[in-house]
Amino acid sequence: MVEDFINIAKRAKQASLEIADLNAQIKNSALIAVADMIEKHQQEIFEANSQDLANAEKMIETGEISKSVFNRLKLDENKMRDMIKGIRDISNLEEPIGKILLNRKLDDGLTLQKVSCPIGVLGIIFEARPDVISQISSLAIKSSNAVILKGGKESKNTNRKILEIINLALDSVEVFPKNVIQQVFEREDVAQMLKCDKYINLIIPRGGNNLVKYIKSNTSIPVLGHASGICHIFVDESADINMASSVVVDAKTQYPSACNAVETLLIHKDFAKKDELLASLQLNEIKLVPNPENWSTEYGEKTLSVKVVNSLDEAIEHINTYGSGHTDGIITKNLENAEKFMNKVDSAGVYFNASTRFADGFRYGFGAEVGISTNKTHARGPVGLEGLTIYKYKLQGNGHIVDDYAKGLKTFHHEDLN
Amino acid sequence: MVEDFINIAKRAKQASLEIADLNAQIKNSALIAVADMIEKHQQEIFEANSQDLANAEKMIETGEISKSVFNRLKLDENKMRDMIKGIRDISNLEEPIGKILLNRKLDDGLTLQKVSCPIGVLGIIFEARPDVISQISSLAIKSSNAVILKGGKESKNTNRKILEIINLALDSVEVFPKNVIQQVFEREDVAQMLKCDKYINLIIPRGGNNLVKYIKSNTSIPVLGHASGICHIFVDESADINMASSVVVDAKTQYPSACNAVETLLIHKDFAKKDELLASLQLNEIKLVPNPENWSTEYGEKTLSVKVVNSLDEAIEHINTYGSGHTDGIITKNLENAEKFMNKVDSAGVYFNASTRFADGFRYGFGAEVGISTNKTHARGPVGLEGLTIYKYKLQGNGHIVDDYAKGLKTFHHEDLN
Repeated sequence: MVEDFINIAKRAKQASLEIADLNAQIKNSALIAVADMIEKHQQEIFEANSQDLANAEKMIETGEISKSVFNRLKLDENKMRDMIKGIRDISNLEEPIGKILLNRKLDDGLTLQKVSCPIGVLGIIFEARPDVISQISSLAIKSSNAVILKGGKESKNTNRKILEIINLALDSVEVFPKNVIQQVFEREDVAQMLKCDKYINLIIPRGGNNLVKYIKSNTSIPVLGHASGICHIFVDESADINMASSVVVDAKTQYPSACNAVETLLIHKDFAKKDELLASLQLNEIKLVPNPENWSTEYGEKTLSVKVVNSLDEAIEHINTYGSGHTDGIITKNLENAEKFMNKVDSAGVYFNASTRFADGFRYGFGAEVGISTNKTHARGPVGLEGLTIYKYKLQGNGHIVDDYAKGLKTFHHEDLN
Repeated sequence: MVEDFINIAKRAKQASLEIADLNAQIKNSALIAVADMIEKHQQEIFEANSQDLANAEKMIETGEISKSVFNRLKLDENKMRDMIKGIRDISNLEEPIGKILLNRKLDDGLTLQKVSCPIGVLGIIFEARPDVISQISSLAIKSSNAVILKGGKESKNTNRKILEIINLALDSVEVFPKNVIQQVFEREDVAQMLKCDKYINLIIPRGGNNLVKYIKSNTSIPVLGHASGICHIFVDESADINMASSVVVDAKTQYPSACNAVETLLIHKDFAKKDELLASLQLNEIKLVPNPENWSTEYGEKTLSVKVVNSLDEAIEHINTYGSGHTDGIITKNLENAEKFMNKVDSAGVYFNASTRFADGFRYGFGAEVGISTNKTHARGPVGLEGLTIYKYKLQGNGHIVDDYAKGLKTFHHEDLN
């Protein structure tokens, strides 16, 4: 019999309270123990993965899953090495919890501190890639959050085995709380998770557009992520043709299925080398679509919508209308236009003479990436560990009461301390 | 005929894009113009308010509204003066938009800036208090957000008049965009607003528990606020009796209907002066309830649930179980216990030897307060202007492409600049 989701959620909440102030050294030891344990037991993980792959092959035949899902599901030596290295890298990142973000004297003997702390319980819903488990589990441990994972059914054996090994490692670390990392498997669990706002504080979907859209419209729990990446590049009148060509080719072809790949090229009507630019794109095997049915199409392959616009303003308006607020760039020699573009385009990333493909937590120097968010609250753009934290206010007094201030017996003397 | 809400929302979105990069000087001039215009036309506002009060008197008779709603609705000279002063104060606050939060060289010629920017469109749903309009409108202008206001029907005339005067002032400011502040009046508009996640980025409810609970469970748009304030004070074994009494009296009686008033007193079983403490509370007209039906009761009056607990751990567990994550304090001489309490209690404010009534944006030195949030994402505790901002990443290159880094021709040299 499958356990009620609510019990899993309650245990996660309890675990989140226990891990909230666990010291950095214990968390880092736990991460190293997890990396070591996965390294030691990798053969078992490969075996579990083989079972999933065998099942998946049948599902390809029946059309239940695609070849690309199959590829993401497959763990090889390289992915395993990256997985293990990723966990060790996270253990080396700066401690995100307990940072003093504000230290303010309110009055004599009355001191306010704003201190970073974990969010609580994360609900992670992901599709095929089993390496998400170790990555998200490590980020959760580092940031003192508890997590409930729900992976795709096609990777069930691999996921189960990886979590078993992670928990074997965590159990070996003295004082590490139980139930920090839990996993569910049923589709019904997702529906329960989305309703569970009493115990789950943040949902992070890792998967295709439809998954993310479904989740965003079916929960009142905050969701961190992006449903789509409709990125634009606007080639301004004064753009350098070589730079324009090189940047657009990179943004479209370097990894076409990435969310930060460009989907629409906007060209100023007075850009003299328009034909040359388009020819160079075609030479690089980019299929150009001058009149797409929908200007919000995310191709995920070497196809690009192209539109000639009359002005910078029209480009900005097009992007704010059809874009997804992910990452949009301008190629220009005109600094004023670049500044206007970057101020007026309402996206997480606004780029000037650079490829949209730079939108990534590692490239930004965050060390690890939770995902890329197109939200307008909490965390936007590539999200590092900081996105898994919030803060609390600690106030220390000496019997201070508000009535003294209301009556004018005392007054506030706000002063920021170091 | 009432206009479709969607058109109002679209105009707000457009206005939000126009005000996004309006310079600080224009915004501050606009705020001063609003304050001056309200001062000049205050008689008209009082007249509109009189109409609402006359209607409200009838509604008291029929039981549709309470006496306290009537009091909140009533504008007098003092409230008017505070309203006008509040707008001028906001114009003097530090500019919240365009702050450089991170300035990082990623590689030669490739620079990343994280810059604060507005959220976009705010939906404000509030009850009787008409002074909310000027306050929220001012905060929205200062933070370059557009806003759609929905007030209670009992203050319809006052609200309409105040907004008319605000927009008269804004129209007088050259280049100030249209439709930054709009208002709706119908109950049906609230239902539309909650569904309008394409155009509205943040909902801020200002009102009673039921309003906030309804909103939180009926929208997937982020909601900033708190449904209830179940604040606790734990009197530890080593507490000073005089401090305990003074702080609890302040926290309960200084303003009993405030959300940061204490609702539950927890006393350590070994606190020797328990009887003395309870007697002093009763002397201060506090009604003590030793066995409440519900430990999550927000009294809003001089009534206090009281429980004797066996340990600090039991106090922490009680608070994390029955509290609302608003503000909770410990009274103790034991520093270790205070630290444990502040780390383990999962609330926006954790206090040591101070009254819970300090949980307030003005007392924290934020200059203005959007509200108090019990959220675990975006903004927590008293929220100042910063809570109405998010950030975008601006990347400036010189034709940089990711392929050069993927092929190892270039490597990242992350370096934080001043």
